Amino acid sequence: MSEPKKALVLLNMGGPDSVDAVEPFLYQLFSDRDLIQLPLGTLLQKPFAKMISHFRAKTVRENYRRIGGKSPLLHWSRLQAEKTCEKLGEGWDAFVAMRYWTPRADEVVQRIVAQGITEAVVVSLYPHYTGATTGSSIKDFQRAVSQHGPDLACRYIEEWHDQEAYLDALTECVQEGLSLVPEGKQDKLTLLFSAHALPQKFIDRGDPYQQHVEETVAGVMERVGDYPCQIGYQSRSGPVKWMSPDTLDLIAAAGKERRSLLVIPVSFVSDHIETLEEVDVEFRDHAKEHGVPWFGRVPALNDRESFIEALVALVKQG
Amino acid sequence: MSEPKKALVLLNMGGPDSVDAVEPFLYQLFSDRDLIQLPLGTLLQKPFAKMISHFRAKTVRENYRRIGGKSPLLHWSRLQAEKTCEKLGEGWDAFVAMRYWTPRADEVVQRIVAQGITEAVVVSLYPHYTGATTGSSIKDFQRAVSQHGPDLACRYIEEWHDQEAYLDALTECVQEGLSLVPEGKQDKLTLLFSAHALPQKFIDRGDPYQQHVEETVAGVMERVGDYPCQIGYQSRSGPVKWMSPDTLDLIAAAGKERRSLLVIPVSFVSDHIETLEEVDVEFRDHAKEHGVPWFGRVPALNDRESFIEALVALVKQG
Repeated sequence: MSEPKKALVLLNMGGPDSVDAVEPFLYQLFSDRDLIQLPLGTLLQKPFAKMISHFRAKTVRENYRRIGGKSPLLHWSRLQAEKTCEKLGEGWDAFVAMRYWTPRADEVVQRIVAQGITEAVVVSLYPHYTGATTGSSIKDFQRAVSQHGPDLACRYIEEWHDQEAYLDALTECVQEGLSLVPEGKQDKLTLLFSAHALPQKFIDRGDPYQQHVEETVAGVMERVGDYPCQIGYQSRSGPVKWMSPDTLDLIAAAGKERRSLLVIPVSFVSDHIETLEEVDVEFRDHAKEHGVPWFGRVPALNDRESFIEALVALVKQG
Repeated sequence: MSEPKKALVLLNMGGPDSVDAVEPFLYQLFSDRDLIQLPLGTLLQKPFAKMISHFRAKTVRENYRRIGGKSPLLHWSRLQAEKTCEKLGEGWDAFVAMRYWTPRADEVVQRIVAQGITEAVVVSLYPHYTGATTGSSIKDFQRAVSQHGPDLACRYIEEWHDQEAYLDALTECVQEGLSLVPEGKQDKLTLLFSAHALPQKFIDRGDPYQQHVEETVAGVMERVGDYPCQIGYQSRSGPVKWMSPDTLDLIAAAGKERRSLLVIPVSFVSDHIETLEEVDVEFRDHAKEHGVPWFGRVPALNDRESFIEALVALVKQG
């Protein structure tokens, strides 16, 4: 009889799988108090979330329509899980659990338990720790375990922003991006790392997110060599104070100084609405408008071999 | 020495005078508890309003951009006030006070008082009474009077949905609309009256709005003669139960039955975003998509002579 299998579970945020799923997806997103704290407590989070998701849906549906009508996040997360299991060898089964859309943690834990699996390694796909993403996803998964699989032994891997193999993989992306810069534009080129913004108060009360982002960038820059570089924060949404500088402002400044830009998205490990729509469409338009001589983006990690190696190393080293 | 002047004040909702004014305008709108009751009381109205106006601004800015970057409401309301004063003869000064954008009631009352005016006739430009529009505007004006002009003697005119002269003026618009219908499309033509929707609960607790709309439509149809007609409610926005039927559904149904449509907006007395953008762009597209053979809209009352006569009659009869 063969060994009982182990589960590899990758956690991510998820995204709508159709334009009709945009509004209920946003409702899940805005309902999560770890991600967004709407005014005046838990009692109000849901009515607030209902209203905001309703009002925001129209714009967001348009954004998803522009990238083909759905989020590519599940596709890439699944490939990452499957390829990592392949490399780990026999005895591993691949799972993906999404925080705000299907497959949700409850369903995943039930499936794991139904297959007679008793051990799981659970990896957050957010490279930089914040309670708003990794914290919320891990908590959600733990709740599902306690409810549907209290005997499932889980090991959680939540922090890896400075893992060597991850930095190597991201550096590979940057190098591929650099190879795309046309001859004449190499001179006045800035590497613009762009991370998803958080409300500034998250950082002020001790969240390590910004520090993690800066350490990742430092690790990549050590490997890439001598280029001017900047860090910007993108995707501000609500009317609160956000981390700065805003990526959009850095793009406008580059335009003024006639510097070319190579954007490196750092908060996600695969393509998603923030790369395909926000960077590739909105930022590119913004760059054009502000006279940036050349604007490009490095490819996402997606199912790149070197990133799969990083995931394998994470699982093996624990 | 000439008689002291009287003020004619027309009340309307107002609209952004530039695309940059869209977000603060929406904030004013969503802050008004007479118009929209956000969950759980007065304490929360403002943070809620701040967030919703922020999230909704992007879409609404696009809508205003499509009609030239600003609302035409102030332009028409001013012309209506001035032309009415001209017809009233010497001794009248024209004012417009807006509920959600400038000029606000406070400023208007101060100007009236500074001119030494001691009497005012205040007319709500909403033909159908609801606490959400007329009620809110009158309350706002009365508050400004008690604060800035407690000695100003005001007479308020708030209900005139069945005034003969108003019905005559609206009938004139319908007849002009009918003259635009091409020969072949006269046969299967429906007159589609479209009013701004309110949350159904406003009606359920006794608001006369729907009854007023229906009485206005009945009065116009008596004058227009024998045409099939329907009433729809447009501009639903939040995630609550709205008055029905939705104008959009009536348009889709007309498409199925290959009926042509002549739309008569009934909630406003001048052009505004809901006629120029919602009816003329969104509804027209919707009609085309659903196979409506011909789709048109009757002109708004704006500064039409017969409507000015109606306003004069209102002021004179009180």
